[in-house]
Amino acid sequence: MNHMFVEFIECTKCGEKYKSGLNYNCTKCGSILDIKYDYEKIRDRIDMRRLPISGSGVWRYKELLPIENPSNIVSLNEGSTPLYKAERLGEAFGLRNLYVKDETRNPTGSFKDRPITVAVSKARELGVGTVASSSSGNAGGSLAAYAAKAGLNCIIFAPSSTLDSKLIPIALYGSRIVIVDGTVSDAFYLAKKASEEHGWFNATSTFVNPYQLEGDKTVAYEMVEQTGGEVPDWVFIPIGAGPLLVGCWKGFKELNLLGCTTKLAHMVGIQAEGCAPIVKAFRENTDKVDSWGKLTTIVYAIADPLVGYSQDGTYTLRNIRESGGVAEACSDKEILDSVKLLANKEGIFAEPAGAAVVAGAKKLLDEGKVGSDENVVCVVTGTGLKQMISERFERPKPIRPDSKELERFLEKTGL
Amino acid sequence: MNHMFVEFIECTKCGEKYKSGLNYNCTKCGSILDIKYDYEKIRDRIDMRRLPISGSGVWRYKELLPIENPSNIVSLNEGSTPLYKAERLGEAFGLRNLYVKDETRNPTGSFKDRPITVAVSKARELGVGTVASSSSGNAGGSLAAYAAKAGLNCIIFAPSSTLDSKLIPIALYGSRIVIVDGTVSDAFYLAKKASEEHGWFNATSTFVNPYQLEGDKTVAYEMVEQTGGEVPDWVFIPIGAGPLLVGCWKGFKELNLLGCTTKLAHMVGIQAEGCAPIVKAFRENTDKVDSWGKLTTIVYAIADPLVGYSQDGTYTLRNIRESGGVAEACSDKEILDSVKLLANKEGIFAEPAGAAVVAGAKKLLDEGKVGSDENVVCVVTGTGLKQMISERFERPKPIRPDSKELERFLEKTGL
Repeated sequence: MNHMFVEFIECTKCGEKYKSGLNYNCTKCGSILDIKYDYEKIRDRIDMRRLPISGSGVWRYKELLPIENPSNIVSLNEGSTPLYKAERLGEAFGLRNLYVKDETRNPTGSFKDRPITVAVSKARELGVGTVASSSSGNAGGSLAAYAAKAGLNCIIFAPSSTLDSKLIPIALYGSRIVIVDGTVSDAFYLAKKASEEHGWFNATSTFVNPYQLEGDKTVAYEMVEQTGGEVPDWVFIPIGAGPLLVGCWKGFKELNLLGCTTKLAHMVGIQAEGCAPIVKAFRENTDKVDSWGKLTTIVYAIADPLVGYSQDGTYTLRNIRESGGVAEACSDKEILDSVKLLANKEGIFAEPAGAAVVAGAKKLLDEGKVGSDENVVCVVTGTGLKQMISERFERPKPIRPDSKELERFLEKTGL
Repeated sequence: MNHMFVEFIECTKCGEKYKSGLNYNCTKCGSILDIKYDYEKIRDRIDMRRLPISGSGVWRYKELLPIENPSNIVSLNEGSTPLYKAERLGEAFGLRNLYVKDETRNPTGSFKDRPITVAVSKARELGVGTVASSSSGNAGGSLAAYAAKAGLNCIIFAPSSTLDSKLIPIALYGSRIVIVDGTVSDAFYLAKKASEEHGWFNATSTFVNPYQLEGDKTVAYEMVEQTGGEVPDWVFIPIGAGPLLVGCWKGFKELNLLGCTTKLAHMVGIQAEGCAPIVKAFRENTDKVDSWGKLTTIVYAIADPLVGYSQDGTYTLRNIRESGGVAEACSDKEILDSVKLLANKEGIFAEPAGAAVVAGAKKLLDEGKVGSDENVVCVVTGTGLKQMISERFERPKPIRPDSKELERFLEKTGL
């Protein structure tokens, strides 16, 4: 019943090879592992050249995912999110071919459901009874939901800045929550150590678990399917450590290897000015990303200082450069304005991190790096319903249910 | 370019007929209007007997929807929501064939996107520049999003109990908000009157606008498609005024007329004990629903006292009875417990109104009205992200990022 085309798992630095199992970073050099497939065999078995693949969601690409037995799949119908032509937003910016890949439509409201469906399926396949993760909220909510569906125990490590609106769903799904007095990096290390000690499956959605990137890459497959085989010129992705960007880049490269496409996209990683370690290295034209000091942003979902695992940032930067892409940062004000713009022009309500790509696309267009006729896809990664930027909302004063009072109200507020 | 199979619009009480246009209630007797199609012609043109219809979302059924020209359609990829077999929840209850139709997966997080996509498309078709609605939040959020996508003005009338978490998305989509010092009924009347005076398209999602029920009925089409042509024995739906229930019932009847099915479902309407006008009439075995007095529930999305339009409740009750169904009420405690149960067993996070059907299904099973082998579908209407029942959440105290402190915490909290 082995449906898997995985050949081996390889260290991205020293080249050490591993068999599929409970793998995290390279046990030899500590670097990031990557899953390698037998693309020749995949080409023979399924015709990826004829897109779209039938069915719906992440698991229609199961030949390109690292699960041996489909009966282990734990799914909540993730993926197959809409790709919209953003006509009104594009017009406002002067971008003729602007698209939004709306990842807010995933089951728990963010793209994290893609890596997490793979992780929880792998945990089930390996027979592990407890899954754990460090998370600022979205990955934690996703892991808690999939663990609930699968009947697994779940424990989430969240930094103290994590919003109640991200923790409440996690608690309702039945997960345990550990609030760590520190940053996402502190939570990362505690989750890692505790998972090793207790034998939990560590599903932290950075690069520590090589299986999860395989879920991320399905965003690239879908983009190409949804444009009838076209590859965008530019793909904008909000990045903390950057696994979604690296995953998408891998997805585009695989479509080339499988003979579906002949072109590759330029990958753009967007960070918030208040936590931009990868952008800093890009701007300084160095290869090595350093960890970040003080966080001064409310764009929490991508506020990862990478303390102790700056190699993750270095790896993401290497992938951005390989794609001929850019790393750029936007201010919190630019990002919050883009939340409003995306809602107001396209009817899509994103969290700040999700809308950051919109601010980024405008910036690169204004700087002349992106041309007004080029094909641009903004990956909007998470829903605004879990970070409502309520500080900008002023609740209107109630009026009596009376026509005259309504007319006065309308006049005063200028409709 | 007329793609429409609408024959006429008919009063459900006096039988007066209208042509398609800006219709609300019957101008002769004030009753609810219903849209009638030429099913013979539809049978010739599309083969609804061969389900599923290809494509995705509400608009793949466009022959059964009241829009003349498809270029007027305003869509955010609503519909095609998952139907899950709820294995773990069913096991907990002793229901062998329990399904969840997960309407939280719609673009703005509730089923309201189905009636609203039809309403906003109709507003565009009729050339109206402003849409309005009274709403406790979900319909308002939906209308504001679709109006943003279409570039129309939007104005939402919300009762004073409406939560900030429902108003913030509405404001970000760019809609005007009028908070009405009163109930949803007061907001209803103010929206109705103002729409008449200003020439706005009144998209209030009760029975006032006959087009919107046509979007609701697509839930029934999808249920039948997703079970390979089977009709459930029981369909549970949370009801305020009840258009979703009546719409689904119409959908099942249409599938019969079109030759796709030979069976009909029993429709069960669930209300909260603190606002249960339809259940009261059902229990008292009368035909006429009376409006409700004091609201004593936090299940806001279905807390409609029907003051001034109790005929809507009477109409819904008539449809429930016609289906051989039941109207039942649950306590707020039962409903809040079911939010947790649904999240914990199935990984689905619903708002209280959405999870009310789970409490209702358990109740009817325990009362022996529903058999443990029967096919039961619970329509979970809206996401929990807009009403998080935060009063039940206790934020854990932070711990230092230290293994020993973690072990103490885990021991104390009992993992």
